[in-house]
Amino acid sequence: MQSFLQFNPTKLWFGKGQIEQLTKELGTPGKKVLLVFGGGSIKNNGVYEAVKQQLDHMQAEVYEMSGVEPNPRLTTVKKGIELCREHGIELILAVGGGSVIDCAKAISVGVYYEGDVWDIITRKAVPAKALPFGTVLTIAATGSEMNNISVITHWDKNEKRGWSSSLAYPAFSILDPEFTYSVPLDQTVYGIVDMMSHVLEQYFHLTENTPMMDRFMESVLLTVIEAAPKLLENLHSYEHRATIMYAGTTAFNGLLSSGTDGGDWASHQIEHGLSAVYDIPHGGGLAIIYPNWMRHCAEADPSRMKKLAMAVFGVDGAGKTDHEIAYEGIEALRQFWNSLGAPNCLADYNISDARLEELIHKSFMKEQVGSYKIMTRDTVREILTNSL
Amino acid sequence: MQSFLQFNPTKLWFGKGQIEQLTKELGTPGKKVLLVFGGGSIKNNGVYEAVKQQLDHMQAEVYEMSGVEPNPRLTTVKKGIELCREHGIELILAVGGGSVIDCAKAISVGVYYEGDVWDIITRKAVPAKALPFGTVLTIAATGSEMNNISVITHWDKNEKRGWSSSLAYPAFSILDPEFTYSVPLDQTVYGIVDMMSHVLEQYFHLTENTPMMDRFMESVLLTVIEAAPKLLENLHSYEHRATIMYAGTTAFNGLLSSGTDGGDWASHQIEHGLSAVYDIPHGGGLAIIYPNWMRHCAEADPSRMKKLAMAVFGVDGAGKTDHEIAYEGIEALRQFWNSLGAPNCLADYNISDARLEELIHKSFMKEQVGSYKIMTRDTVREILTNSL
Repeated sequence: MQSFLQFNPTKLWFGKGQIEQLTKELGTPGKKVLLVFGGGSIKNNGVYEAVKQQLDHMQAEVYEMSGVEPNPRLTTVKKGIELCREHGIELILAVGGGSVIDCAKAISVGVYYEGDVWDIITRKAVPAKALPFGTVLTIAATGSEMNNISVITHWDKNEKRGWSSSLAYPAFSILDPEFTYSVPLDQTVYGIVDMMSHVLEQYFHLTENTPMMDRFMESVLLTVIEAAPKLLENLHSYEHRATIMYAGTTAFNGLLSSGTDGGDWASHQIEHGLSAVYDIPHGGGLAIIYPNWMRHCAEADPSRMKKLAMAVFGVDGAGKTDHEIAYEGIEALRQFWNSLGAPNCLADYNISDARLEELIHKSFMKEQVGSYKIMTRDTVREILTNSL
Repeated sequence: MQSFLQFNPTKLWFGKGQIEQLTKELGTPGKKVLLVFGGGSIKNNGVYEAVKQQLDHMQAEVYEMSGVEPNPRLTTVKKGIELCREHGIELILAVGGGSVIDCAKAISVGVYYEGDVWDIITRKAVPAKALPFGTVLTIAATGSEMNNISVITHWDKNEKRGWSSSLAYPAFSILDPEFTYSVPLDQTVYGIVDMMSHVLEQYFHLTENTPMMDRFMESVLLTVIEAAPKLLENLHSYEHRATIMYAGTTAFNGLLSSGTDGGDWASHQIEHGLSAVYDIPHGGGLAIIYPNWMRHCAEADPSRMKKLAMAVFGVDGAGKTDHEIAYEGIEALRQFWNSLGAPNCLADYNISDARLEELIHKSFMKEQVGSYKIMTRDTVREILTNSL
């Protein structure tokens, strides 16, 4: 086990009706609030009304910024920063999914930074101060509601960059499973793939003696695998929406990598390149890339893939080589995702090898890609080619 | 799943050498610190020196209070409160196990309370303010290092009372597995029984649809069962000390009861009565009481005991009734604890039925004892009698 700090300052209010906690979190009446949201679906499913009711109750002075993109853009972040400065905003309230929350995080640290906020996103500058922000989650997927990580896209440069800061934890997050009832089937599936990928990426670490965390990660995966098909049969099931929602948060709030090296995020980086160029859903891209990344890594060392196959996918190891067990597990993962309706290959998005070299280039936004297995341009090319 | 708040403000610094974080946590030089510890073992194992080095480095003005009892007493708490008031203490630093930390918690809220601190402990008064405190853990057991719970004994009344407060979380806790190397075999075992009991008590809840938390609880138990015998063979194993230490914290820091009704703590209450009267080790008392509590509860409804038996103790259910599976699991738990050297029955502590009625009376310090199964005086009598 490695040394670590376990600390997460976000207050997570989970359950039906928890929107009422917003009043408590606002604290004093008359606060200036920037309400950040996406394409407007919250106006059709009752979430906007529920939030506004609390804000009105506390006589908040509300400014709105809608239209945050599924892959939130730097231009939108800058617009939010301007609004905060112009109106002297005291609290940012992100109502939406990971994209909206990631955008709010960047606005929050950007407000007090005099230079270009892209400096912070590209880790050239470290923020010294941040505007407090809270979230009301409307889709279970990224875990952004309880971590300090954000991903922003510079569309002009076709660059999608992840960044984090100790200042970028939400002060509070409100998670009502009912607020996710109207998430359509495909988005629900992408969210499930995303949260499972987060767990898998943490699972493929190189640290010895992490038995409890390994079991916790297997527990999250087993739970999602059990609940997901039931949820897809009834998107209004409180029980299964709750299970998936809490799993998504737990998948990526820091807990699962306590004492490990943090795992290997190469496939996320490859996918970020992919969705920066083609603007496809992140979860869809992951469903394609991830099994191919696993197959590639299992060639050299199948041990963790074997462990996963047996603990999570119930693969019977009798009479099989480690490689056979590992590949059987990877195939079970791919089939599970396909059974939910996730895409299988890049052709499903009409993506060919036309811009392959550009995709490879975009995967190397960081100096090192991968840690469980360090990637080269050739290995990324192989993974992408196998994903076509 | 029930609605819940997940929030824990304690910063947990885990790993070898993390004592150096104490400098950071002290923040400013020259702070007035009350160092609280127990019988003085920290002066023999190097922990005291390591702590003092950091305090000296930060030119802290250190006052010491040693001699906190294994079941910490109200008189000691009051002594600590006086010291804090007298010297204008700014930070309490508890160096020790659960008893020392529990004592520090009571001091911390007692300093600003004008009445008798026993009012807070008996929940007649709610604290409004607390002195910040941190901990350096030297024994893995109670989980007090990352929760807001404390147990204090009023020796004159033979009353041992648990209390909690949102103000009673440590600001920080430093957990270096090496600091637990010198914990003797018997205390190591009691700690293991205590942390396993915490998980079990949370496991026996009545809430439907908590699949992930159930798996997390099973994960902690499986990990402890796997690591404990190896640790007892080599008490200086960093690996196994680390596994047990982190399991002890995770067992009782709020995480495992997220979304459940919190579980059933009747056996803890029965044990508190027992150790208030006989001053026996808490973990020893639990090892005796807990399986008897389980057997009693399984009679009416064996379902959760059956789940535990199969998931944690690998009981094969083929051809057996639910009751048979449940009892086999309970027996496996008892045998596991006995194999570690934990006591089996009250006679092991030379406790007879002489003060049985008093023990029953002491178990009912709260209006309701138990929730998974509500206890009556007769059922407590049955459990205690079976424990003789």
